[in-house]
Amino acid sequence: MVEDEVTSEETREDDYALDDRVVTSVLMAIATGDGDRVRTLLEPLHAADIADLLEQIDHGPRRDFILLVPDLVDGEVLSEITDSVREDLLDFLPREALSQAVNDLDSDDVVDLVEYLDEEQQQQVLDVLAGPERLAVEQALSYPEESAGRLMQREVVIAPEHWNVGQAIDHLRAHEDLPEQFYHVILVDPRLKPVAYVSLGRLLGSRREARLAEITEDSFRTFRVDQDEGDIAYAFNQYHLISAPVVDDNDRLVGVITIDDAMIVLDEEAEEDILRLAGVGEGTLSDRVVETTRRRFPWLAVNLVTAILASMVISLFDEAIAGLVALAVLMPIVASMGGNAGTQSLTVAVRAIATKDLTGANVWRVIRREVLVGLVNGVIFAVVMGVVGVIWFGSPMLGVVIAVAMVINLVVAGLAGTVIPVVLERIGVDPALASGAFVTTVTDVVGFFAFLGLASVILL
Amino acid sequence: MVEDEVTSEETREDDYALDDRVVTSVLMAIATGDGDRVRTLLEPLHAADIADLLEQIDHGPRRDFILLVPDLVDGEVLSEITDSVREDLLDFLPREALSQAVNDLDSDDVVDLVEYLDEEQQQQVLDVLAGPERLAVEQALSYPEESAGRLMQREVVIAPEHWNVGQAIDHLRAHEDLPEQFYHVILVDPRLKPVAYVSLGRLLGSRREARLAEITEDSFRTFRVDQDEGDIAYAFNQYHLISAPVVDDNDRLVGVITIDDAMIVLDEEAEEDILRLAGVGEGTLSDRVVETTRRRFPWLAVNLVTAILASMVISLFDEAIAGLVALAVLMPIVASMGGNAGTQSLTVAVRAIATKDLTGANVWRVIRREVLVGLVNGVIFAVVMGVVGVIWFGSPMLGVVIAVAMVINLVVAGLAGTVIPVVLERIGVDPALASGAFVTTVTDVVGFFAFLGLASVILL
Repeated sequence: MVEDEVTSEETREDDYALDDRVVTSVLMAIATGDGDRVRTLLEPLHAADIADLLEQIDHGPRRDFILLVPDLVDGEVLSEITDSVREDLLDFLPREALSQAVNDLDSDDVVDLVEYLDEEQQQQVLDVLAGPERLAVEQALSYPEESAGRLMQREVVIAPEHWNVGQAIDHLRAHEDLPEQFYHVILVDPRLKPVAYVSLGRLLGSRREARLAEITEDSFRTFRVDQDEGDIAYAFNQYHLISAPVVDDNDRLVGVITIDDAMIVLDEEAEEDILRLAGVGEGTLSDRVVETTRRRFPWLAVNLVTAILASMVISLFDEAIAGLVALAVLMPIVASMGGNAGTQSLTVAVRAIATKDLTGANVWRVIRREVLVGLVNGVIFAVVMGVVGVIWFGSPMLGVVIAVAMVINLVVAGLAGTVIPVVLERIGVDPALASGAFVTTVTDVVGFFAFLGLASVILL
Repeated sequence: MVEDEVTSEETREDDYALDDRVVTSVLMAIATGDGDRVRTLLEPLHAADIADLLEQIDHGPRRDFILLVPDLVDGEVLSEITDSVREDLLDFLPREALSQAVNDLDSDDVVDLVEYLDEEQQQQVLDVLAGPERLAVEQALSYPEESAGRLMQREVVIAPEHWNVGQAIDHLRAHEDLPEQFYHVILVDPRLKPVAYVSLGRLLGSRREARLAEITEDSFRTFRVDQDEGDIAYAFNQYHLISAPVVDDNDRLVGVITIDDAMIVLDEEAEEDILRLAGVGEGTLSDRVVETTRRRFPWLAVNLVTAILASMVISLFDEAIAGLVALAVLMPIVASMGGNAGTQSLTVAVRAIATKDLTGANVWRVIRREVLVGLVNGVIFAVVMGVVGVIWFGSPMLGVVIAVAMVINLVVAGLAGTVIPVVLERIGVDPALASGAFVTTVTDVVGFFAFLGLASVILL
């Protein structure tokens, strides 16, 4: 009877997002304890979509879901889900269901799953793992967070350099347990150092007698096991890699990273930059009020300090304001325009630093450009505001004061918006995280000081 | 003599970014007209790095570079480079070098290269293309911008459903002209409708007698040729796809999209969101002053209007300010805190909309959460500012006024920061582009009105 709520035709419009009506139907089925209905509704969904569903619903229904259909929370769903919701799930998931779930996964997926859990929950998962699997996971966890060692899969497909195509194919066919995903056969020397790779397409398209060494790909490039995953994702995107071997300090092959994992990292890094630029930290929509409040608090606290600084500048000129209230009315405009222009410059700079497009080679050119852009836009808006000032308050000199202050602040905004992120990067502070506060402080202080200072000198 | 400037050991530290010293050395070589030296320096670099170099150097040296070593600007470099710099290059590149460059490329790369050129330059490239290649490019250009049709490669590897592994491998081996990249053999029915696919790894690991239909992958999913590339990139990331067939309106196979292209799109979409949130539009670091100024102007103009609106609110209370200048000193704090809290909420909302995590199913829960977070942080900062107000100006009632205004504004910020992007999305406006202006207007107006209004009623 409710079946026709969700027809394939209707969901066609936007066929990746989990449909609202599916979520509503699942919630209804959970409320009535109808496990079969939940199963029917989720049957066509990908594990990633089930994970999204569990993220979107509330804590209460989520618990009821697990108690009703524990087996639907399989390994794939668990590894797709966001950290905070996973912690929530693990609190309720019966040991048996958990064991089933994690023993289905490849070791690198189990690593994804447990690496950010607290120690107790991590132990809870490791305890249900089979022996060799557990060893593999523990070894991966011994590599630094966000390193190649955590990202790579340990299953590799290798061949000696001197083999030909026929030998490689026969070897693959005899291999019981090929990795689920692999795109290259890695050629290694006798010391297990990767020296080249052959794409599977090339392997399939070549004569059996062709030597592997003759059909290798130019794109070959290896990563060190302790290398940062962000740098690796960047390299995958920059050089259009599909998979790449990972080596230890002795240049021995220890694993392979594939593009789908690199793509997830690239997406996470961009997400992180966006959220950091807005002072939001690393939260997700599924976090609860307390966590979210705590995450956003520090940035608001920093902003309060900078706002008080700006207010102190204003208070230097309280007599001027008492004498001419128009100054209080107009002063936020100068500060606000500076803040916005500064945010524009700093966002471009932060992003260019992240994509390695802003370097020592072009930093002076970029600074010069940003200052010039600030100057040109400053002059345009100065003329506009000068005219507004004259019309609104009937004082040509007030118009001149706001115009000059506007030019000064927009030039400073362009300068600060570029220099501050570059300097933060040089001294090892994440520019996405810290630039905003500094740049706004500069544009607020300079804006108020220039406008009120000029006004005191010229008008009073 | 300058050779030792750039040793492999020194560049090891950060081996993806183009090294500053390489850029400097190349610039020196260009200045002295030493083409051989340029060649030596660029020899170890990937086309993507040469493209980055040409983006980082100035217009003048870039022109000299092309005149000195036109053959180094090959097809790959041209397709890697950002649009504005490409236009610049095409102005100087000799016809012969251009012809050489583009005829080396696959048709989908030529599409990338020409799709955003102006008509004259587009014609210039099409003119040097060989006949069939040119036809393929023109057909791709007939699909909408940013659609699957533009993104896909037209070369596909197919097999009938009833074949076995041996037949497929023999067919591949006999095939003269396999695509450079392919990861699946697509199974098609007699009407050329794709029905499943087999990964190359699976093909290589199976017995020759195994039927293809028995070793297909669950991840199979097709896209329509007019589908938006952003949605496709999202699906690749969400469902961990490696390649996917593209079909026309009759469900006939017309091409295939691979993950490396999807990864580039995903990266571009995130970049676009970051820049739009900051009101920067689509510029790059290589744009010149005039273009950059023009791109940033509209957002600053919108901000000027909202700032003037806020000023008008202030001017409603000019008598109150004249009576108590402390109001002018403190009012920016309330507005600034609201603006920041609003930006936090809207960034989370915009990003969640982009990743399809914020939907009709959880929008009310998210709004409730944001309002509560605003309330909690509002109360905390209200207490802090109340105390600051009392200490600074010795007036307990002023402390109360700023505290109450702070709570009101932070709650409104949470509400506006979530509701505005959601509504914009519903009415078909890009929330990343427009939310900022609306939310800041709300928090400025509410901030000034609440603080000054309460002050007028209570203090005067």
